[in-house]
Amino acid sequence: MDLIDRILHGDPRAAARLITMVENGTAEAVAALKAIYPHTGRGYVIGITGPPGSGKSTLTDRITAELRQLGKTVGIIAVDPTSPFTGGAILGDRIRMQRHSLDDGVFIRSMATRGHLGGLSRSTNDVVDVLDAMGKEYILIETVGVGQAEIEIVRTAHTTIVVAVPGLGDEIQVIKAGIMEIGDVFVVNKADRDGADRTVLEIEMMLEHGESDDGWRPKIFKTVAARGEGIDALTQGILGHREFLFEEEGHRRKGRERTRWVFRGLLQERLTARALERMARGGGLDPLVDRIAARETDPYTAVEEVLKKLGL
Amino acid sequence: MDLIDRILHGDPRAAARLITMVENGTAEAVAALKAIYPHTGRGYVIGITGPPGSGKSTLTDRITAELRQLGKTVGIIAVDPTSPFTGGAILGDRIRMQRHSLDDGVFIRSMATRGHLGGLSRSTNDVVDVLDAMGKEYILIETVGVGQAEIEIVRTAHTTIVVAVPGLGDEIQVIKAGIMEIGDVFVVNKADRDGADRTVLEIEMMLEHGESDDGWRPKIFKTVAARGEGIDALTQGILGHREFLFEEEGHRRKGRERTRWVFRGLLQERLTARALERMARGGGLDPLVDRIAARETDPYTAVEEVLKKLGL
Repeated sequence: MDLIDRILHGDPRAAARLITMVENGTAEAVAALKAIYPHTGRGYVIGITGPPGSGKSTLTDRITAELRQLGKTVGIIAVDPTSPFTGGAILGDRIRMQRHSLDDGVFIRSMATRGHLGGLSRSTNDVVDVLDAMGKEYILIETVGVGQAEIEIVRTAHTTIVVAVPGLGDEIQVIKAGIMEIGDVFVVNKADRDGADRTVLEIEMMLEHGESDDGWRPKIFKTVAARGEGIDALTQGILGHREFLFEEEGHRRKGRERTRWVFRGLLQERLTARALERMARGGGLDPLVDRIAARETDPYTAVEEVLKKLGL
Repeated sequence: MDLIDRILHGDPRAAARLITMVENGTAEAVAALKAIYPHTGRGYVIGITGPPGSGKSTLTDRITAELRQLGKTVGIIAVDPTSPFTGGAILGDRIRMQRHSLDDGVFIRSMATRGHLGGLSRSTNDVVDVLDAMGKEYILIETVGVGQAEIEIVRTAHTTIVVAVPGLGDEIQVIKAGIMEIGDVFVVNKADRDGADRTVLEIEMMLEHGESDDGWRPKIFKTVAARGEGIDALTQGILGHREFLFEEEGHRRKGRERTRWVFRGLLQERLTARALERMARGGGLDPLVDRIAARETDPYTAVEEVLKKLGL
């Protein structure tokens, strides 16, 4: 049986192999992604974001256990920025997930930042497609960083979960990361700490000022993920949002938004790669960078020159 | 006197006007950026990043005050993700900066996330050029989010400052954001809290495992920014790194890296914009997105079709 068939039959080793190919950016990876694409679109994508230290990994682990209890299969993508320093720390976090590693119904993969800006978003999405094609019913994307790129990754999910914690500094930390408006479901984790109710109240107050496009009123849940408290209610909240979306075909709209975002990102990446290939024949980027750095030209004029040479 | 001349003479109102034009993406903005570009390259760029709640705004404010005492002019760019919910909260933070608002030697501007991924990086860089052209000797870029995009913004600075705080969760938060390797200077802020020395030690241990490209050994400073403690030593540390860079022309190397990064980002943005313009004539993105969403084609094949049509 070839790689594609094995993935479509849910073989985790085949899936892992394709994901490695995707990360290495091979031509075979693209061919395989094309082949599996017709078999995607069934998985329900859940994005989880929040500030560092809010317990996203533990929450992801607990939600996974709950979904498994309900008989659902789960794929998990942990989006980690690469760092030569961080291997150990992130590994430590992931160890908690190990209890799912013997469970065929769960597939876990960490994604690291590679290369230039935007590359991570694109490859994360390819991995969503792989997990989707292998039949995972729920696909959880957990981001470690809280920034523009990570927000764009999770906001294209069907359900986006924003995690906050009480007393992280003097302000609500999630606000500062600008992620309040992307949440369908809010979690105040570590809710046994002082100030949990205040954090809930603050989120409620902020939600009152916002409007949802589709009439969904975001829900707020308190959890103590480390002890598994509040996870059942949270999971029901997620499933409630899913039901809401399906009732009015909202999952199709969200899927379409995701498609548009993926397509646009891929177009951007491929255009740049193609342009750089063309430029490589004429000495590459260096001569232009030298001229800009010497202030003989400026970035805008230089880019216009390149576009002209490319006939665009 | 026209806009360009006024900016080159340091007029803050002219600079603010050009920045607004940049944010709105007008053609006049591009013309003006081209005109000021030959007058850039003198400012020293300092990037400040760290997890939410680490006190970056207060640190930026204090470093600014210290640099002013040393007779230096300062430009500040606060990179905030846009959120309909956050206006007030971010404003609150910025209010602390107000004490510089009557000082001609300081220019402050907040940048918000607009449009698609990467747009913020590019416009932030344009604002660096504006502040540079108006003669600001030190340009401080403070990011609110901690993610891939934000890391790329600050890592192209001459000096990158990574801010940590004791006891933010059970681990060192900065590790999780994957930002340890980009720091030239580390700050353990709120160092009056328990565990400050442990945080310093943990950063030291991690630094031992890393290597610097240029022989710089990152320095760690303890501060209590809210009370102004440790700011003089920190500022001297920043100036020390600056001296180190200048001694071996490292500032030119860093400037060149920045130029390359800016050029590449601008190329990517303009290529995509041009391609979308061309596609708009043929019905735009929608028909393709529909076909992909219906699984009649896949994103990779669709992008190849577009590239072919564009003659690339």
